[in-house]
Amino acid sequence: MDNQENLYLAKVAGLHLISNLTHACRFTNAVRVNGLPCKDVKDVKVDDFFLAANLDKPRDTTMSKVKSNVTLINVMKLAGLNTLGISMARIDYAPQGQNPPHTHPRATEILTVLEGSLYVGFITSNPDNKFFSKMLNKGDVFVFPQGLIHFQFNPSYDKPAVAIAALSSQNPGAITISNAVFGSKPPIADDVLAKAFQVDKKVVDWLQAQFWEDNHN
Amino acid sequence: MDNQENLYLAKVAGLHLISNLTHACRFTNAVRVNGLPCKDVKDVKVDDFFLAANLDKPRDTTMSKVKSNVTLINVMKLAGLNTLGISMARIDYAPQGQNPPHTHPRATEILTVLEGSLYVGFITSNPDNKFFSKMLNKGDVFVFPQGLIHFQFNPSYDKPAVAIAALSSQNPGAITISNAVFGSKPPIADDVLAKAFQVDKKVVDWLQAQFWEDNHN
Amino acid sequence: MDNQENLYLAKVAGLHLISNLTHACRFTNAVRVNGLPCKDVKDVKVDDFFLAANLDKPRDTTMSKVKSNVTLINVMKLAGLNTLGISMARIDYAPQGQNPPHTHPRATEILTVLEGSLYVGFITSNPDNKFFSKMLNKGDVFVFPQGLIHFQFNPSYDKPAVAIAALSSQNPGAITISNAVFGSKPPIADDVLAKAFQVDKKVVDWLQAQFWEDNHN
Amino acid sequence: MDNQENLYLAKVAGLHLISNLTHACRFTNAVRVNGLPCKDVKDVKVDDFFLAANLDKPRDTTMSKVKSNVTLINVMKLAGLNTLGISMARIDYAPQGQNPPHTHPRATEILTVLEGSLYVGFITSNPDNKFFSKMLNKGDVFVFPQGLIHFQFNPSYDKPAVAIAALSSQNPGAITISNAVFGSKPPIADDVLAKAFQVDKKVVDWLQAQFWEDNHN
Amino acid sequence: MDNQENLYLAKVAGLHLISNLTHACRFTNAVRVNGLPCKDVKDVKVDDFFLAANLDKPRDTTMSKVKSNVTLINVMKLAGLNTLGISMARIDYAPQGQNPPHTHPRATEILTVLEGSLYVGFITSNPDNKFFSKMLNKGDVFVFPQGLIHFQFNPSYDKPAVAIAALSSQNPGAITISNAVFGSKPPIADDVLAKAFQVDKKVVDWLQAQFWEDNHN
Amino acid sequence: MDNQENLYLAKVAGLHLISNLTHACRFTNAVRVNGLPCKDVKDVKVDDFFLAANLDKPRDTTMSKVKSNVTLINVMKLAGLNTLGISMARIDYAPQGQNPPHTHPRATEILTVLEGSLYVGFITSNPDNKFFSKMLNKGDVFVFPQGLIHFQFNPSYDKPAVAIAALSSQNPGAITISNAVFGSKPPIADDVLAKAFQVDKKVVDWLQAQFWEDNHN
Repeated sequence: MDNQENLYLAKVAGLHLISNLTHACRFTNAVRVNGLPCKDVKDVKVDDFFLAANLDKPRDTTMSKVKSNVTLINVMKLAGLNTLGISMARIDYAPQGQNPPHTHPRATEILTVLEGSLYVGFITSNPDNKFFSKMLNKGDVFVFPQGLIHFQFNPSYDKPAVAIAALSSQNPGAITISNAVFGSKPPIADDVLAKAFQVDKKVVDWLQAQFWEDNHN
Repeated sequence: MDNQENLYLAKVAGLHLISNLTHACRFTNAVRVNGLPCKDVKDVKVDDFFLAANLDKPRDTTMSKVKSNVTLINVMKLAGLNTLGISMARIDYAPQGQNPPHTHPRATEILTVLEGSLYVGFITSNPDNKFFSKMLNKGDVFVFPQGLIHFQFNPSYDKPAVAIAALSSQNPGAITISNAVFGSKPPIADDVLAKAFQVDKKVVDWLQAQFWEDNHN
Repeated sequence: MDNQENLYLAKVAGLHLISNLTHACRFTNAVRVNGLPCKDVKDVKVDDFFLAANLDKPRDTTMSKVKSNVTLINVMKLAGLNTLGISMARIDYAPQGQNPPHTHPRATEILTVLEGSLYVGFITSNPDNKFFSKMLNKGDVFVFPQGLIHFQFNPSYDKPAVAIAALSSQNPGAITISNAVFGSKPPIADDVLAKAFQVDKKVVDWLQAQFWEDNHN
Repeated sequence: MDNQENLYLAKVAGLHLISNLTHACRFTNAVRVNGLPCKDVKDVKVDDFFLAANLDKPRDTTMSKVKSNVTLINVMKLAGLNTLGISMARIDYAPQGQNPPHTHPRATEILTVLEGSLYVGFITSNPDNKFFSKMLNKGDVFVFPQGLIHFQFNPSYDKPAVAIAALSSQNPGAITISNAVFGSKPPIADDVLAKAFQVDKKVVDWLQAQFWEDNHN
Repeated sequence: MDNQENLYLAKVAGLHLISNLTHACRFTNAVRVNGLPCKDVKDVKVDDFFLAANLDKPRDTTMSKVKSNVTLINVMKLAGLNTLGISMARIDYAPQGQNPPHTHPRATEILTVLEGSLYVGFITSNPDNKFFSKMLNKGDVFVFPQGLIHFQFNPSYDKPAVAIAALSSQNPGAITISNAVFGSKPPIADDVLAKAFQVDKKVVDWLQAQFWEDNHN
Repeated sequence: MDNQENLYLAKVAGLHLISNLTHACRFTNAVRVNGLPCKDVKDVKVDDFFLAANLDKPRDTTMSKVKSNVTLINVMKLAGLNTLGISMARIDYAPQGQNPPHTHPRATEILTVLEGSLYVGFITSNPDNKFFSKMLNKGDVFVFPQGLIHFQFNPSYDKPAVAIAALSSQNPGAITISNAVFGSKPPIADDVLAKAFQVDKKVVDWLQAQFWEDNHN
């Protein structure tokens, strides 16, 4: 099984549970927990708990249309996180860049701003759909409760912004709303979406014809 | 605290956890679990575990734009469910009606079709956003994994459809995607949404001006 | 390992935990979660989440002495339920038929009546052993808390009854009290049971000589 | 709320969850967790974690028909156990005494024999209902998996037996099968039980007329 | 109940469980979850999820003997974290400063270095007590599994170091080994510690006479 | 993989989670849960749930410097405990013997004294580090909350003591503080420990030169 498959495995698999596990899973190759590769215990080494992640280095934000870049250190990148229930990310935002509305099905997110400012928000569930938003400056901390749609936006026209976030799962998952709804493979029937979003089918067709990519490194 | 507040409490509160509890919470009025009212143990009666829910009766599907009606029996309607980790719903669909794309942040859903047919689907998380869909006939069973965006649509032009669904939480929550994104109170800044959905701000403005309601009874 | 063994595996295994997992387990054949077979991720298809269960069709209730028939859609029948924490059942009751006193060691049950009427009840644990009972009509909803002994009985002398139930586990398990106590293989020593039930050993011997079967399809 | 109510509260309440909590709950009187009284933090003292339980002393086994006596140290007796997920019991068995078939809805039990010998067993769930039994001598250890019907019996005609057991819940609960089925208050309809147990209604009536008590101290 | 008490409450209370909750607890003042104050739902505001924590600002490291300073943003400082299962910390280390050997009873820690370098390590449990250590540079990421003794040390003689850490609990707890063992109130009997640490009682007495404080802001 | 490795596996692995599982894991050899060997279901037998542990027999307490001996019956010794969330131990203390300060990262402990007397205690976490202690006599029960540093000491100069303890995990883990801090392999840098414990490096060097072993059978 190659890495790509492995990545897929971890995403599809229900990893909510193992977030609650303590200590590192370092099994033999013959055994996998949640589809993730495990090593023979004799080969466990400190580097299983370490990643030269370069989280201090700016990322390229020009390659995604939303002008941001999420560098997530989850269990696929740092094997020792398996069963440990946490992950960490650096997020770079170009001026006017955003991390667009998305949910983490398996994690709450806590975030602090390292550079610049961020306008952030989340929306509560039905029937209220209340929108809570805040302007964050350097050193501020904000919380996005698990499963709620949320976003971050860099309001500056000339300065980048950087945040460090942590998520309460080794594999929090991310569903970018626009990509899942309009960029699914294959596309959702346009008449279903047209009625759901109260727009003409042509609008849906146009949206579905766009190039949808997520902003993860 | 009136019922309306109570409803809100239960929605806001993290009820994921108590879904895992066994047995009924029937405490004194002085004690609440997760903000839900509890009764004095001397007053616990069989009706705390019972609801004359009329789940056999068709619901009005003409009052929501998406022409469907979800009758959810959760802990707010059936107090004895508190801490029991399950709920049940009847869903009515008019011809061409749909239960539009939404997520349940705290539950998986299993559904069977009682009347008519349903075209159903869900989309996996980033980066694949695979769309899995199926046409369901009477008596068929389908599963929507927790946290994933999913929908049901009645493809018939003349016959209603009815489903019974069960959810793995006493208060599964529901986030109707279109309502949360375009109908939040207050609205999300239109330039943020315009970039996220790759549309002109005017499209966002038009969408935010629509009347968004969810299709729950 | 054949299917029969597999079925056994899933029953013996502690599946309480994985009821809490989110998303579907769709691993390679080399990996199993809780002993259940998992498929290569490349072969995951929508039908893993679908079952043509015919839950709309009446079941034969003449083959069990208690004149009922439980059609349970659990993870052994619908593989995509693995790790998803929920299952669904149709229960058919002949006139005067019953689903006899039993427990689900790993699930709460919520039930609605589709056809006819049901007299239902559960008993609380020591020392009170309170019996809560209720007559249910079509469309009513009732809850049986996890682990408590409960039953349903169709009081009609001429009409069948039908219920749809959901359980808060992908493999809730069922222990029919009479079968486990008097129909175990091998039998429990009769002098132990005689004293436990305050009856003569001959009564126990007679009971153990009966043919005990459970009422599952 | 008096102690008796309190006892009832804790029994009815779903305490499965809090078995997973760490550390002691020692809140103010205004706050209760799961209905159990909590003290002001200033009053927390070492005795909250201590009980002079006299587990070394033989108990009277002549007062219950089954000639055994269970002394359970759960959260109702040792308040500091609240949220700590474990309890302990001493069980005394007169010659030919038994701890009759019962389940613990919220706990697995591990047991060691301090004095004498015990014949023990448990029955697996449907459809197999396999009976696993073993003769235990002093110092032996045995495990009864959560939710399964099990019993212990002292086969000696002249010597008592004593066991120390531990259970994986601060309030494991106990359902003595015979008591719950034939001694519930009010009684279950005799025609339901007659059919469930394949006996004449008169046998059920006779059984329901017996005096049912559980063997807990 | 004043703030100080409240802080104590949260520390004593078993908060492991609520780490698994989703969404924010924003109840009425009459209700508390795990002893933490909750607000009336009408008063919930975005600032409940926000803290102007100044995590970008250097902290004073001269006031603790170990020359480090932990600024932990947990649920006592950021009320909206209640039930959300995550917290974040900035740690400042003077040259040759350390965050001395300690455990988090309720959380795994993931850490990235913002400034300078850190020599870090953890020790596995009995019987191996393996010591895994690593030198971390800016941008590196390291994981400390839940419950294991670990430390960070700034090896530089002239430059400070800064780290951002996240922990998988809203109230992870910290037990500084030296403080708990030699600085408890009242002190542990010196003959017990002398034998445990294989030293003379006088050494223990001398150690217990030191001034022990932890390095939290 | 031999037994020794297996033991290591189980210790390293995060077994907190599976403590919550119900029922026994008895899978085919091709499948392991948490690295523990599982048997083909056809070979499951009552002895999987049984151990002739001789917990009634005194253990040798002369072989450890702390003059105590812990005989732990965990999942490595009693395979049927896998997924069952509990374990049991007999602890022998010579006169003046102690079970030195240690933590169980994955379990609360409940203990009763079978023979002699024990002086026991635990210390709360930062910043209070309160020491709660108690003298226990035969038959007394005491609770050590999960993750806190605790010990037992036999104050008698001439009589041994014996305790039976139960722990809320099938593999609770143990970290003997002195061994982990001063006896790790390889040793922790002495200047780090010197500063952490406010002692001269020579004291640390001397301590690290001692022979550290844990007191488990």
